[in-house]
Amino acid sequence: MNQLEYITRQLSRAERKRFEHYVVTRIWHQLDDLALKFVTQQYVKRPQGIALTDMYFPQLKLHIEVDEGQHFDRNGNRIQQDNMREMDIINATGHRVERVITADKSLKDVNSRIKEVVGIIKGTKAHTDDFRPWDYAAEYNPETYLNRGYIDLKEDVAFRIKADAANCFGNNYHPNALQAGVAKHPFETNKILWFPKLYRNDRWNNSISDDGTVITEMCEDEARNVPHIEATLQKPNLTRIVFARVKSSLGDIMYRFVGEFAVDTEQTNNNHGVVYRRISERVNTYRHDSN
Amino acid sequence: MNQLEYITRQLSRAERKRFEHYVVTRIWHQLDDLALKFVTQQYVKRPQGIALTDMYFPQLKLHIEVDEGQHFDRNGNRIQQDNMREMDIINATGHRVERVITADKSLKDVNSRIKEVVGIIKGTKAHTDDFRPWDYAAEYNPETYLNRGYIDLKEDVAFRIKADAANCFGNNYHPNALQAGVAKHPFETNKILWFPKLYRNDRWNNSISDDGTVITEMCEDEARNVPHIEATLQKPNLTRIVFARVKSSLGDIMYRFVGEFAVDTEQTNNNHGVVYRRISERVNTYRHDSN
Repeated sequence: MNQLEYITRQLSRAERKRFEHYVVTRIWHQLDDLALKFVTQQYVKRPQGIALTDMYFPQLKLHIEVDEGQHFDRNGNRIQQDNMREMDIINATGHRVERVITADKSLKDVNSRIKEVVGIIKGTKAHTDDFRPWDYAAEYNPETYLNRGYIDLKEDVAFRIKADAANCFGNNYHPNALQAGVAKHPFETNKILWFPKLYRNDRWNNSISDDGTVITEMCEDEARNVPHIEATLQKPNLTRIVFARVKSSLGDIMYRFVGEFAVDTEQTNNNHGVVYRRISERVNTYRHDSN
Repeated sequence: MNQLEYITRQLSRAERKRFEHYVVTRIWHQLDDLALKFVTQQYVKRPQGIALTDMYFPQLKLHIEVDEGQHFDRNGNRIQQDNMREMDIINATGHRVERVITADKSLKDVNSRIKEVVGIIKGTKAHTDDFRPWDYAAEYNPETYLNRGYIDLKEDVAFRIKADAANCFGNNYHPNALQAGVAKHPFETNKILWFPKLYRNDRWNNSISDDGTVITEMCEDEARNVPHIEATLQKPNLTRIVFARVKSSLGDIMYRFVGEFAVDTEQTNNNHGVVYRRISERVNTYRHDSN
């Protein structure tokens, strides 16, 4: 998928909602700025529950909603967190939301509001410290993060394959070689890399808190749960660099960096399962040592 | 349907063709000119057969084709004139066609070509003599043509209901009062108004030539055909102001002005049916005389 593919796939997703589509395409084409990434139909966590915003600019933490705040999915069903468990749902606390109303408006009114919103987006970009231009080709490339020296939660980092994530920490996996849910960290041996599904799957009932700081892991097979908890508690100093498996807005699987986590030995027990707490939003990257 | 409805319906029609859609929306939003009308997926007659252009600017006689010249309909089937008989197919002789290729191109290349095309459209508008800005509300309103004093083939005139067309010639029909296929011309009594289906329908096999100058009308019910031909030939000086019934690009029925026609008494016979030839591309309009 090249950048043209990505953009056209993003822009063609509001097929059945032509007013939304008009607004989203007009914002994009009038912005005319390839340095700005956008995602359409982004699921976001809000105090009132999960919502779907029509256009999201991750670098600016800015969302566009067309007409009603979308608490319905693209099929018009009210969004239930359970149904969305696989999806890439981001925490939108502190994000800015701009709304464009089309209902009962004239074309000129809608165009005029869009012009205003385009101005707001440009202004937000100008006032974003350390704004990093969107580089489509670099975004999913481990080399980008190896050169940068770190991966930070603020930068919305996700990889298309687990090997790419693991290779940011000194590993040297071939693209499809990493099938397991964990990988070693060759440079910081008190850490491992973890690629969990943070929702109920198979016999595991995992979850991440709305604010992204607590992961809970519980095996519903009791014969496995207790030994797993005990084994985890035996290594209280082993921390986990976590890339959660999510389905992107375009339906692709991605591994999204959610932080570095440590076992909470007090909260962990046979009833709660293993409780992990985020201890860092940023982790260092390491180039593979070929010697 | 207001102008916002019209525009969004036009822009949402390339749903499944997202590259075409990208190009069409970008042209429209970057042109940013409400004085320019456009139609998406316009059927056109060409020397090689019927084609479908992705975006058509009627005031400029300019078409945009994305990638291949579209000799396929929106379902991907080769366009057969027979299947398209109801559609609003325009004669594109002398029209300009600009192509935008997206296949194997980068986003920057596509954007750069679109910028060029937008420049061509603006230039064409600037060089169009007597350019008449698009006035969505006025376009289908008889008042527009009563004020103008005439209806001209060059100006792509169509009405949504027969009464509106008839009321441009001194009639005073209520919107749904005119059901017949003909109406009188109160001011020029040697003329009648005719609203034919110019394709095979019921027992009538009608057609209009590709260049729009000849209409042929034949009843397949022989018992009716001969009397109809004889009746027509008995009034050789009665001419017809013709509004052909067509299905618009959005699927609505419209009555498109195709000119004033006179019977060709030499060509008309029981084998050919009635042959009419266009004698004028412009007809005068008359306000209803309420006295």
